[in-house]
Amino acid sequence: MIEDLKNQARKRATLESPGQTLFIKGKCTMKTHSQKSWLRQSRWWLAGTVAAALLGSTNVRACEACNLVMVNKLLNGSKPSLHASEMSFLINQAEGTGAARLRTSLAALSSTPVSYPGLDLNSPSPFQAAIGGAPRPIQLAQASAPAAQRPAAAAAKHEFLDIIDRDRKLGIPETSYVLPGTKPDKKFTLVMAEGEIALGNGVIYHGFTVNGTIPGPTLIMDEGDVVELTVVNNGEVPHGVSLHAAYTQTSKYFGKIFAGETRTHTFRVTYPGVYMYHCAPGGHAIPMHTLLGQYGMMVVKPKKQKFKMDEVMGRGPDLELYMVQHELYASGKEAVEGKPAYVMFNGSLFRYVASPIKVRPGDFVRINFLNVGPNILSTFHLVGIIWDFAYWQGLPNPENTLVGGQSVLAGPTDSWVVDFRVPPDEGNYLIVNHAFGSTTRGTIGILAATKDAVRSPTVLADGPTYTPEDFAKLKAKAVRTISPFEPGSDELAAPVRLANGEKKMRISIIGNSYYPKVVAVPSGTTIEWTNDDVFAFFDGEFSGVHDVKKGNKGPSDFWSPMLGHGEKWSVTLTEKGEYNYFCTPHPYMEGIIRVE
Amino acid sequence: MIEDLKNQARKRATLESPGQTLFIKGKCTMKTHSQKSWLRQSRWWLAGTVAAALLGSTNVRACEACNLVMVNKLLNGSKPSLHASEMSFLINQAEGTGAARLRTSLAALSSTPVSYPGLDLNSPSPFQAAIGGAPRPIQLAQASAPAAQRPAAAAAKHEFLDIIDRDRKLGIPETSYVLPGTKPDKKFTLVMAEGEIALGNGVIYHGFTVNGTIPGPTLIMDEGDVVELTVVNNGEVPHGVSLHAAYTQTSKYFGKIFAGETRTHTFRVTYPGVYMYHCAPGGHAIPMHTLLGQYGMMVVKPKKQKFKMDEVMGRGPDLELYMVQHELYASGKEAVEGKPAYVMFNGSLFRYVASPIKVRPGDFVRINFLNVGPNILSTFHLVGIIWDFAYWQGLPNPENTLVGGQSVLAGPTDSWVVDFRVPPDEGNYLIVNHAFGSTTRGTIGILAATKDAVRSPTVLADGPTYTPEDFAKLKAKAVRTISPFEPGSDELAAPVRLANGEKKMRISIIGNSYYPKVVAVPSGTTIEWTNDDVFAFFDGEFSGVHDVKKGNKGPSDFWSPMLGHGEKWSVTLTEKGEYNYFCTPHPYMEGIIRVE
Amino acid sequence: MIEDLKNQARKRATLESPGQTLFIKGKCTMKTHSQKSWLRQSRWWLAGTVAAALLGSTNVRACEACNLVMVNKLLNGSKPSLHASEMSFLINQAEGTGAARLRTSLAALSSTPVSYPGLDLNSPSPFQAAIGGAPRPIQLAQASAPAAQRPAAAAAKHEFLDIIDRDRKLGIPETSYVLPGTKPDKKFTLVMAEGEIALGNGVIYHGFTVNGTIPGPTLIMDEGDVVELTVVNNGEVPHGVSLHAAYTQTSKYFGKIFAGETRTHTFRVTYPGVYMYHCAPGGHAIPMHTLLGQYGMMVVKPKKQKFKMDEVMGRGPDLELYMVQHELYASGKEAVEGKPAYVMFNGSLFRYVASPIKVRPGDFVRINFLNVGPNILSTFHLVGIIWDFAYWQGLPNPENTLVGGQSVLAGPTDSWVVDFRVPPDEGNYLIVNHAFGSTTRGTIGILAATKDAVRSPTVLADGPTYTPEDFAKLKAKAVRTISPFEPGSDELAAPVRLANGEKKMRISIIGNSYYPKVVAVPSGTTIEWTNDDVFAFFDGEFSGVHDVKKGNKGPSDFWSPMLGHGEKWSVTLTEKGEYNYFCTPHPYMEGIIRVE
Repeated sequence: MIEDLKNQARKRATLESPGQTLFIKGKCTMKTHSQKSWLRQSRWWLAGTVAAALLGSTNVRACEACNLVMVNKLLNGSKPSLHASEMSFLINQAEGTGAARLRTSLAALSSTPVSYPGLDLNSPSPFQAAIGGAPRPIQLAQASAPAAQRPAAAAAKHEFLDIIDRDRKLGIPETSYVLPGTKPDKKFTLVMAEGEIALGNGVIYHGFTVNGTIPGPTLIMDEGDVVELTVVNNGEVPHGVSLHAAYTQTSKYFGKIFAGETRTHTFRVTYPGVYMYHCAPGGHAIPMHTLLGQYGMMVVKPKKQKFKMDEVMGRGPDLELYMVQHELYASGKEAVEGKPAYVMFNGSLFRYVASPIKVRPGDFVRINFLNVGPNILSTFHLVGIIWDFAYWQGLPNPENTLVGGQSVLAGPTDSWVVDFRVPPDEGNYLIVNHAFGSTTRGTIGILAATKDAVRSPTVLADGPTYTPEDFAKLKAKAVRTISPFEPGSDELAAPVRLANGEKKMRISIIGNSYYPKVVAVPSGTTIEWTNDDVFAFFDGEFSGVHDVKKGNKGPSDFWSPMLGHGEKWSVTLTEKGEYNYFCTPHPYMEGIIRVE
Repeated sequence: MIEDLKNQARKRATLESPGQTLFIKGKCTMKTHSQKSWLRQSRWWLAGTVAAALLGSTNVRACEACNLVMVNKLLNGSKPSLHASEMSFLINQAEGTGAARLRTSLAALSSTPVSYPGLDLNSPSPFQAAIGGAPRPIQLAQASAPAAQRPAAAAAKHEFLDIIDRDRKLGIPETSYVLPGTKPDKKFTLVMAEGEIALGNGVIYHGFTVNGTIPGPTLIMDEGDVVELTVVNNGEVPHGVSLHAAYTQTSKYFGKIFAGETRTHTFRVTYPGVYMYHCAPGGHAIPMHTLLGQYGMMVVKPKKQKFKMDEVMGRGPDLELYMVQHELYASGKEAVEGKPAYVMFNGSLFRYVASPIKVRPGDFVRINFLNVGPNILSTFHLVGIIWDFAYWQGLPNPENTLVGGQSVLAGPTDSWVVDFRVPPDEGNYLIVNHAFGSTTRGTIGILAATKDAVRSPTVLADGPTYTPEDFAKLKAKAVRTISPFEPGSDELAAPVRLANGEKKMRISIIGNSYYPKVVAVPSGTTIEWTNDDVFAFFDGEFSGVHDVKKGNKGPSDFWSPMLGHGEKWSVTLTEKGEYNYFCTPHPYMEGIIRVE
Repeated sequence: MIEDLKNQARKRATLESPGQTLFIKGKCTMKTHSQKSWLRQSRWWLAGTVAAALLGSTNVRACEACNLVMVNKLLNGSKPSLHASEMSFLINQAEGTGAARLRTSLAALSSTPVSYPGLDLNSPSPFQAAIGGAPRPIQLAQASAPAAQRPAAAAAKHEFLDIIDRDRKLGIPETSYVLPGTKPDKKFTLVMAEGEIALGNGVIYHGFTVNGTIPGPTLIMDEGDVVELTVVNNGEVPHGVSLHAAYTQTSKYFGKIFAGETRTHTFRVTYPGVYMYHCAPGGHAIPMHTLLGQYGMMVVKPKKQKFKMDEVMGRGPDLELYMVQHELYASGKEAVEGKPAYVMFNGSLFRYVASPIKVRPGDFVRINFLNVGPNILSTFHLVGIIWDFAYWQGLPNPENTLVGGQSVLAGPTDSWVVDFRVPPDEGNYLIVNHAFGSTTRGTIGILAATKDAVRSPTVLADGPTYTPEDFAKLKAKAVRTISPFEPGSDELAAPVRLANGEKKMRISIIGNSYYPKVVAVPSGTTIEWTNDDVFAFFDGEFSGVHDVKKGNKGPSDFWSPMLGHGEKWSVTLTEKGEYNYFCTPHPYMEGIIRVE
């Protein structure tokens, strides 16, 4: 069943450039989960879901790379997707042929904490020694793409030159594709990772970040620029990036970057506008990571066509704001259902109420507005202001230019540039999302006009940063921590109990989290999990396929098979105590059961 | 009270053309409800709600036509709408005058299964014989409209010719009205019915369909075409159709079509664009049937004005996609609240992940995009693509043409045409709704670019079809069935129980369904229903007025009066066992009570 | 600690014009709360939260003005915002220095109903006499603004004339600022208050109104008009107004108007369009009051540029409709979460189904459409109609004019003008929001076309009005009352009980209301409140900061400190009975606890 895992690793190591030798360097992210800490990374590269699926009750956990290997293995690279029930079937088949032996051989291994800092590929790992078996080639399509980038690009130089030529003659902007080796005008780096930020109002958020903030850095470039982007995965799960200003293939270059990897790709920005970028590690994980906080604004400044307001005023704006509206969630379920805990501008609740943006009467102000969402709509409005001009998606073209208006409507990833003058009167002009339910959760700011205001010409959309000391203080004073994957603050994870006469506690697995997060039941209760995640295809951080495995707390053990969409599994718990449990493909998911 | 029902039926038969003799042909849809099957149709035409309301506890159930007759009767055709409390009052008055006699006479009839395959209108029915009474004319406005179509149209030829002449001279498109007898350029047929479809990912959906699929067929026509549309109601409840491409009166021709009826109407499509059509059987049922799955896309191709991209490229697209985003619901409550179980493109979860759409680098692609909704918004986006042009509502007019943009925003029934080029690079371009909560529930697809792709020039929005054998296999393997009106899969209808100390179980009637669908209570509990449906007007499948009548299971009987918005009714159940219950005007609604 | 309150009041009295002498006239709104009545106003101006915070358990309650004084006091005017935990800290400090004395001195005062109809500022109040202390100046920025209006404007005449001159020469419309003393072309008055309205379908709504209706009056003006607006606060809590047609500072003139106050301000409407106005009493209260019903439509008719359809037809419309789509809520929680109980056009459920709007075939119809929201989107559509032209935000400019289309999409405060012809055929044309979940809750109307229709040229967006007698009848017949702040109808406030084994009842404070509104618990249960309101800044009706104080019912007493966002407080109740409780800064908030 598991015969050639090592061979696959070696093959992979050969295919990839040195910086990407996930397996050789022992970067595999089998985790030791802890209720109180974020993901911890050990360095054993051959366990994971495969072992988890075959060994029964152990503490072995899966990493993304291992999942990918196993799935490719199970499928012989022949099917693009697989329903989890079929996967369970295959695993069960495996159980019939070699699982008993595996179970015995690996019992000791799995019962002790793993720690293998280095790994010599030329000698068999303990795991492989236990397994043996003949190598069989598998196809690692997603993973091998980066390695193929250079030769593929070289090929494209010849194959697609006719398209490039055609596009140059069309009289509309070219796409963003550039030939390999094109010299960049600008360089940017995005560092993807997991982490914590302070939202203001005493709230700490535990999720995913770009360059340590939510939103990530505001990337500003000029129409026609060749941009070299470097993406570093400094986290412990796969990340990636989707770049809305790039009118070209990016998925295969930035579509999935494993922990510790770095990727670079070059493209030309040809359409001006206000764009979103966000994490995109494939499949189900694209929306999940975006929902969790990995996004930012990128703006391509027009060069060929002026904004109408610049023509009217004979100059550019006195003040230019970059405003991102975005949501954060307290559970995966609410992320999927579009019920944010908080909605804000630029990373902090009421950020510009606490620190109003200073302007002077008569100022010409431009706002680059992006609604990141990722779920709810925005009608962006300033109290006391009518736009002089609004530009759809931020392009200055006459076709996209509207006159007047009290608001601009933006769904997730929609953007506008709006231009206006501060009237000849001092006072506060409120900046709001006029969808007022979400406004009360964070989307109010103040533009404060006074005649002698010392104002900054630019306000970026980057989320706030703190020194470690200041962050520690904020955390110490925090009244609430929200964490989509874990219980979080007490009032957000109050234990759910059975109604009168009910014998079964139902838990939904949705949005890479368990819901309810904490349950309290009498001894003898049956706990039933249903996987309500829909995207049950085997790409993108083991998309939408989950299991339930007892963690490091609790008197008795349990472990479900992998569950696809709509599949259920249950266990009846009689021994009293507090159990924690997690999902082996997504070990950051955690739920708690209290048997009383 | 009920004296002239037969007379009304005869009058109706006289008014209507032979194909519409609902009453003469015995098509009345009194149902025999069964928990496990869809609506069954018997052929007795004179019972229904009238009997149900007057007879106390029986198994007689109402059909739409009977409801209409009764309501017109009660009102003498004098009021456009009536609150249910007033209706109950009228029924109670009737009880005072003739109900006792009715109750005795009809006891035997109602206690046995009814089966009257033919009916001689010249002899009294058993029901009428029992009732007697003098005929009184009533007005059946909605129902008589189709019969009046031809003479009305002939009249219009004279009455409204001045308007037709005026509109021809305005320099803008005419409306869609055509004189009777105008020869059609194209003919389409839509067959409305109830049914089941497979959504993929192991999910079966039990709802309403057009031509057996969700979405129904994509109707493509040219600007200026005279279109003859035939609508067949092959189902067992009233259906209808609303056609957004038709700029003319259609409600009175297609607004309510009884089971077994067929209607035909002709109109000219004068405005190009991408439009929605959907079921529209009047009042409350218009949104309900649309929420349940009866819709599709109709596209009017422009002839006078070219799309800008066709001018730029000097030709039409290599590939044209028709994409409908739409939602399906697991309960009527969630349909009303806008909480879909699934959101998808063209009728199947991740349809174009399982079978990616093939393109070549450099291809010029056009997408006709329609967000059917019926509730949530869409920001349609392709990863790696910026539109070259986006056309609001699918019209090629310069006024509606926008340049660039990463997304187009569409609420329910909004549409766009977007044009773009596939960049000169191979790889996958994801098609998504960028409102990412719903994306994880089904709205991801893949446009796969390879240099030698064999691609289809057209991808229609029609939902998938299956052979009966394949469908049977899918159903056998299904992990979940969702059915808005009925309990459906276990985890979607887990029995709700009382909290500690609570003596009353509250059930909401909303979206033509009971919520919670299943309750489990101790003996002696009071069950209280509240009608939360708001549209309590007597048109359109007995809009928003409901009752609660015990079905074929359970030891003791109960039956509420008709409840209007906000009205409540309760019963205390002491005998143990499982009860089912339904709504007599909407017998497909079912709830379950377990008394333990 | 509280030394100079009287001095502040005197300072305030000096700053303000006679009509605004909130303190001198004894207008302070300390309330005597009653479960069954709306807010009652007493006339003691110096107690409020200060006393409440310092005295322990009393019946003294806070008014907005007192809160403002206290907060400025605590802060010495030095900070724009303060987290409630910091406030509690300050209050606790105060407790350490003078609270014991205060507690003794004020015991008698607080234990009897207060009634001080007049107040001589030259003699110390009983409260001040008890407190003593040296005056210290504080800054009442928001409150002092109206008084500064005239001198500020005079200053602006000099300071900002260059801006006014510049704007006149730009070739685009000026802002709305006018020099003091400019003679108005039109005058309007808006009266803000709390109250009840009838929604139709047997529903009474208890909330906030403008001129006694929801929506308030439709304000119609012409491009270029100088408009004098008078706003009267005829209610018992602070109100205000935000005017989207005014491109000028209005917050400091209309931003917060205390009970009994009247304000007037003048501005010129320079951009035509369809706009929203709404209540805006500062901070958190802006969205809350808007969510509660205080809004309406204001339309600036174009003079310089004609609507395209007027050019095509050579005349104006036969019929002009003003349509507001808006939502009403049954709880503050649902208001914040965007889950309306009802959605409607112009103030009543299915208003134009009950009374269809009459037109004739061939009529040219214009609809001024505004989606007030305040939360959900609208795709406005007429069955059987394609727009001839749609004008974004209601401006006739060619840039904003679109051709054709089945729908227009509008988020909260978005607006459109749409023009169309009634086709040459009689029949009903349904007016709907095509987001169909909300459609079933009230947004359906009928445009009824008959050849001899006697039609009104104008249908305004004002909510319906009733004589007191008719309203009394509607109320007597009502099946449901919804009241966001209070329990309301039984089925909307069913008592929530503990699940099996649960010892703690959790109550959320959100949207200026308690949720669940009613709880029933066994003796000995701990009740824990968490403040989930996010806007914890001290402006705008004591934004988002709440407490929990036992009211006039219940055997034992309790009173929490002020809670900021995410802060919790709990009490364990052992004595049986029904307790009511309220929030001292927002005494209209009420919850009920039943200890059994």
